Amino acid sequence: TNPVFTGLETTIFETMSRLAMAHGAVNLGQGFPDVDGPEDIRQEAARGLIDGPNQYPPMLGVPALRQAVAEANKRFYGLDVDWQTQVIVTSGATEALADCIFALVQPGDEVILIEPLYDCYLPLVQRAGGTPVRLRVTPPEWKLDLDALAAAFTPKTKAVLLNNPMNPAAKVFSDEELSELARLCVEHDVYAICDEVYEHLVFEGLKHRPLMTYPGMDTRTLRIGSAGKTFSLTGWKIGYITGAPNLIEPVAKAHQFVTFTTPPNLQRAVAFGLAKDDSYYDWLAGDLQSKRDRMGNGLRALGFNVLPCDATYFLTVDISDMGLGATDVEVCRRLVEEAGVATVPVSAFYGADAPVNFIRFCFCKQDHVLEEAIARLAVWL
Amino acid sequence: TNPVFTGLETTIFETMSRLAMAHGAVNLGQGFPDVDGPEDIRQEAARGLIDGPNQYPPMLGVPALRQAVAEANKRFYGLDVDWQTQVIVTSGATEALADCIFALVQPGDEVILIEPLYDCYLPLVQRAGGTPVRLRVTPPEWKLDLDALAAAFTPKTKAVLLNNPMNPAAKVFSDEELSELARLCVEHDVYAICDEVYEHLVFEGLKHRPLMTYPGMDTRTLRIGSAGKTFSLTGWKIGYITGAPNLIEPVAKAHQFVTFTTPPNLQRAVAFGLAKDDSYYDWLAGDLQSKRDRMGNGLRALGFNVLPCDATYFLTVDISDMGLGATDVEVCRRLVEEAGVATVPVSAFYGADAPVNFIRFCFCKQDHVLEEAIARLAVWL
Ligand SMILES: CSCCC(=O)C(=O)O
Ligand SMILES: CSCCC(=O)C(=O)O
Repeated sequence: TNPVFTGLETTIFETMSRLAMAHGAVNLGQGFPDVDGPEDIRQEAARGLIDGPNQYPPMLGVPALRQAVAEANKRFYGLDVDWQTQVIVTSGATEALADCIFALVQPGDEVILIEPLYDCYLPLVQRAGGTPVRLRVTPPEWKLDLDALAAAFTPKTKAVLLNNPMNPAAKVFSDEELSELARLCVEHDVYAICDEVYEHLVFEGLKHRPLMTYPGMDTRTLRIGSAGKTFSLTGWKIGYITGAPNLIEPVAKAHQFVTFTTPPNLQRAVAFGLAKDDSYYDWLAGDLQSKRDRMGNGLRALGFNVLPCDATYFLTVDISDMGLGATDVEVCRRLVEEAGVATVPVSAFYGADAPVNFIRFCFCKQDHVLEEAIARLAVWL
Repeated sequence: TNPVFTGLETTIFETMSRLAMAHGAVNLGQGFPDVDGPEDIRQEAARGLIDGPNQYPPMLGVPALRQAVAEANKRFYGLDVDWQTQVIVTSGATEALADCIFALVQPGDEVILIEPLYDCYLPLVQRAGGTPVRLRVTPPEWKLDLDALAAAFTPKTKAVLLNNPMNPAAKVFSDEELSELARLCVEHDVYAICDEVYEHLVFEGLKHRPLMTYPGMDTRTLRIGSAGKTFSLTGWKIGYITGAPNLIEPVAKAHQFVTFTTPPNLQRAVAFGLAKDDSYYDWLAGDLQSKRDRMGNGLRALGFNVLPCDATYFLTVDISDMGLGATDVEVCRRLVEEAGVATVPVSAFYGADAPVNFIRFCFCKQDHVLEEAIARLAVWL
């Protein structure tokens, strides 16, 4: 069997959800909401199942959704996107990443990745034959070292993979960081694969600005969005990619041989969802911000050193000063088994030499669930 | 960009569907039914959207569907399958193929493919770094040359990819062929990836028998099924793989980084569907058999040389003696533009040196649609 995949563990998110189930723990590990997204979107999807057709939609996605994605690019970021040639729908953002990486990367290519990183990035780059070049941002600000960034570019660099807003750092990249990254991509003629699934989960009135909007980036960026994250329907597995026609073309070739298409009723319902007015998007961010504050305050009251959180639905704590005398993996194991709270060790977001003093809490849960988790942690501590 | 994917055409099935749409043609090209599958299955899926949860299900698939797949293996083929370790659900059979190939094949490996072949096989093997070894079966019987088969195995052979029942040959492999293939796989310690999406679309009381049931094959076979084909819901993109635990394990690693999961409501509805009693499966095969006969008789009456069809929902005709004086691709182009009937040129199912005298008709359409196609062909001829 192929050593890239055979050598891997089951993803930490799945592992923690299994442990949460096994131990009856409050699951603040894997990132998914415990209340499903808008009922009208789900009703729309249900109608599609009954009315049909339930057959292969166009390989690039149903026109209504590609149009809605193009319109959202305009509405939120001022991007002019032709829905026919610049948008493709995928079976989730994970497939979108796989498609982009398999389409762009060939053996010998280097791909710059920023650590901490989502755990599919490394194996996908390796399975595509690429060489990952890891660059680290460090807490509490998780700031990009612009000199180190410049030094990471070589003549072999094919692409940069950027997660913005960033999981688990809960950070929105600054204009300074994005400007320099864009400048380097243009200078070195490098592609950018932008995993922007948390684009609408941004707090305090901060705004997400896609790397694609920077000078020279429209022709070299593949921008990935996620209905699962935007509409609290993570099981639907609807992702979308926006990019220049000459990039969407090879990505479509990867897509047609990786999944080929995506359920048409879910696609139409997501098109309906994307057209919701600002009150939905404002409510979503506001609701999550209040959950962030509830969870953050609870953790701080217990003595946890809670890192800043500007986006996503994850809070990271530094456990160095908690006197727990153990690594993040060990503490997470004890938390799920003894305290009844599932979390994720942040060391899982590193390829090697990971820090072992950070733990991630997912806070997109009902208030009483967050309170229960805090109460359990209090008892355990 | 990566040359494997960049060099490819859009898949012929998508291309013909686009042309059918553009020309208002009767679409007998891409393989999908024009009547959606059972309403009770669709209602079950709709209920799942409303009742939820619509969040990430387990990465291997919802237990109900994995159990149903294990039970179907027992019921239809007498296979003893542990649902917890030997079944994984994927976002369609195409993803299942990608997962199996990315999990098993590494650079330098040879993979034996039987031509004519479904058009994702070659690029997936190549993108995984493998070397395709093509072996051809020829009409009208599409019989496997057992000497040529034996000669195709080398010390580098990692896997055989078998489509049985076979598209577009509409053939069920014989016991003699399967026995010898199994013997060779065991002798050379080779894996088998079995694309059996048409397992329930078999005619005249013929029975499909999985390669996995042959001596020594249970530990080396990955068997792929498809809810899209079995329940006439091709847009749902629900596939499933059955295999030994040591093979399912690396396949699951590929799956977790290719799509991660598959919509839970659709999975539960397919579990419900698989438990349908024999009358559903008998009706399905009988209904398609009568459509095969309707279409076959119509084509024969027009002078077409119709090849035997024991399975799938495809009929292939040999156009050599029709005096059309053109290749299959050219005839298909004229058929969709001039006659208003979309078909598929069988040369698209070959890696190179394809015969150019075969055309495929998809017959899983309403009777009046088949009649309309025949009438249009009659006018055109
Ligand atoms: C695909 S499971 C993981 C969900 C997620 O994005 C996370 O928990 O970080
Ligand atoms: C995935 S589109 C093609 C459907 C099909 O199996 C065929 O037409 O052969």
